Amino acid sequence: MKMKNGIIECSACHSKLLSPTKSVSRAYDKYRDRVSSKQRFFNTLLVVGDCILVGLQPVLVYMSKVDGKFKFSPVSVNFQTEVAKVLFAVIMLIFQARHQRVGEKPMLSISTFVHAARANALLAVPAFLYAINNYLKFTMQLYFNPATVKMLSNLKVLVIAVLLKIIMKRRFSIIQWEALALLLIGITVNQLRSVPEGASSIGLPVATVAYVFTGIFVIVPSLASVFNEYALKSQYDTSIYLQNLFLYGYGAIFNFLAILGITIFQGPSNLNIFEGHSKATMLLIFNNAAQGILSSFFFKYADTILKKYSSTVATIFTGIASAILFGHTLTVNFVLGISVVFISMHQFFSTLSKVKELPKTGKLDAIDEQDDHRSKDPFINMSGANDEGHIL
Amino acid sequence: MKMKNGIIECSACHSKLLSPTKSVSRAYDKYRDRVSSKQRFFNTLLVVGDCILVGLQPVLVYMSKVDGKFKFSPVSVNFQTEVAKVLFAVIMLIFQARHQRVGEKPMLSISTFVHAARANALLAVPAFLYAINNYLKFTMQLYFNPATVKMLSNLKVLVIAVLLKIIMKRRFSIIQWEALALLLIGITVNQLRSVPEGASSIGLPVATVAYVFTGIFVIVPSLASVFNEYALKSQYDTSIYLQNLFLYGYGAIFNFLAILGITIFQGPSNLNIFEGHSKATMLLIFNNAAQGILSSFFFKYADTILKKYSSTVATIFTGIASAILFGHTLTVNFVLGISVVFISMHQFFSTLSKVKELPKTGKLDAIDEQDDHRSKDPFINMSGANDEGHIL
Repeated sequence: MKMKNGIIECSACHSKLLSPTKSVSRAYDKYRDRVSSKQRFFNTLLVVGDCILVGLQPVLVYMSKVDGKFKFSPVSVNFQTEVAKVLFAVIMLIFQARHQRVGEKPMLSISTFVHAARANALLAVPAFLYAINNYLKFTMQLYFNPATVKMLSNLKVLVIAVLLKIIMKRRFSIIQWEALALLLIGITVNQLRSVPEGASSIGLPVATVAYVFTGIFVIVPSLASVFNEYALKSQYDTSIYLQNLFLYGYGAIFNFLAILGITIFQGPSNLNIFEGHSKATMLLIFNNAAQGILSSFFFKYADTILKKYSSTVATIFTGIASAILFGHTLTVNFVLGISVVFISMHQFFSTLSKVKELPKTGKLDAIDEQDDHRSKDPFINMSGANDEGHIL
Repeated sequence: MKMKNGIIECSACHSKLLSPTKSVSRAYDKYRDRVSSKQRFFNTLLVVGDCILVGLQPVLVYMSKVDGKFKFSPVSVNFQTEVAKVLFAVIMLIFQARHQRVGEKPMLSISTFVHAARANALLAVPAFLYAINNYLKFTMQLYFNPATVKMLSNLKVLVIAVLLKIIMKRRFSIIQWEALALLLIGITVNQLRSVPEGASSIGLPVATVAYVFTGIFVIVPSLASVFNEYALKSQYDTSIYLQNLFLYGYGAIFNFLAILGITIFQGPSNLNIFEGHSKATMLLIFNNAAQGILSSFFFKYADTILKKYSSTVATIFTGIASAILFGHTLTVNFVLGISVVFISMHQFFSTLSKVKELPKTGKLDAIDEQDDHRSKDPFINMSGANDEGHIL
């Protein structure tokens, strides 16, 4: 075991990262302590950037279609997106290395790279999960209609919160749990009009296989995001571009293996990954890559929940923009849905709903074990967390 | 001015009741201090009773129809409901008077009655507003379709809260305001399916007269409820049956005047108030009367907001019961709507969202003036109300 700046850097200790420790990374905790108006400004930048990229998406998708259809294989788009992200990470790394100060640890030395690669091996997990998710998306559309798939996707918010609680030891107040449920409901109310009129009762196929598929479809991407957040934050001192290089490197490998697999089953035409691509699809790939990179900033410097809210706000602004541009009237569902989303957002991020931070003393571990019920320990009541419901 | 038990009882001082005093009634404040599990049990009884009566309503309305139509005049139903409530109040008063202990102030003496009548003269205001509201209901249906009327009615929740803040000096936390907005949204989402498909954009007529009508339609009944609560609580020591006798006595007079007015314009056939009535309509009138009496218990011993939540819960249970009884499937709207309503209810009534009570000292008046912004007075911060947003 090699200790540096109080962080375990030895690759032999990876299993320790998954053990239930209070802190994911001391470096990240130190960073969190400096959370301030600067952090809020950074978060706003992230959300605005995300909104722009997500808003461009439907335009680029529309432009990529030829006669209303995609002429390229979706797997090839995934692969090329991963490659674009790797290229971006490499360029940023070279840029960062050139602007290093004298005396800093060289960023591009082989030893640094090998070292970081070992420390960040955990990134292979989210990369693998993301790759699986990309195929699930297409499989799901064979079993459910697109509107149902969209609605099921909303459940991810709650699953992510549960996973953050388990894996990242995040604590949410009751109001925050309710805020997440409201986010889910708000998005769903907004989507209701896209459900065909006949399917007004919940139109799910009742077969057990459908439930299993739904479970996988919701859990895999949620697990991918939370593991990604965990892996990025747990090696907080590694450059995010180096972490991205690993994450997307693994992603490119998994997607390439998939292309090879499909080639074996369906013939060599799938190897021509540029078939059916145009300038518009290149822009689409570029946009996808930028969204992926921005996500990694969310996961490392903010969190998965902020990313979820950001995507929702982006959808809302796209809705409002298209209503203004194309002269649509806003539906009752849209107005009600976004009202619920905005209330949810205020409740989730307002300081009054936050779980109160407990003072860092030896008693902390004892408190952790009482995570799920209101503690009767007088120490806790003295520490300002005595409002019912503030400790979940 | 005559003071008794610290309460101004003189009829000459009515204007004082409307002046911005911190307490509506010291007797009510004393009562509120004893708010306990007993109060919660009483509130539960009120809500359960309300649910049963509201649940019976559609059954009785269905039974009262002959060939799908009402054969009686709605005004006569209103008048007879008021008379039934007066009769119930008289019976309860006689019952109470017979069980009085020796030495207590006689309840049925003329002096007590005249005294109470003067003190409770304010009850004429809600009685008049209710009478106006009964006609507005029918007028509105000429201008808007029933679904739109139903949706506009939901706005009452917010108007009532604003009026409670102004008239009753109630303070709500931000979470509670949001909870009320969620209640409004939840009910509306649940009603969405009853809106015709073509009217997916908000189908309001844009004429100014429509806005004015809507405003009156929403404000009049809200004002009636809040004034009723104010009048009942401000004379807290008067028996609720005596207060009901006055309230419904005024109501009967206003409705009788309306019948006379209609008779003058439309001919003497309207004087036959029992025309078209059956046993079922008698039950309907009895149910209406019981709902009215229960409301007065809500207003005096709980509040208008609890009554609103109670009505909503009643509607939800009616929906679930009819789904079970008649084998309907629950719609997505219903499930989403009631989820929002239940989250709203938890947020409104949970202790963590409550505005913290400040200690009763001479500083109180100074604090009252800072009602709308977070106080920076160190005294307040010491008193436990230092969580951002807890003081609205």
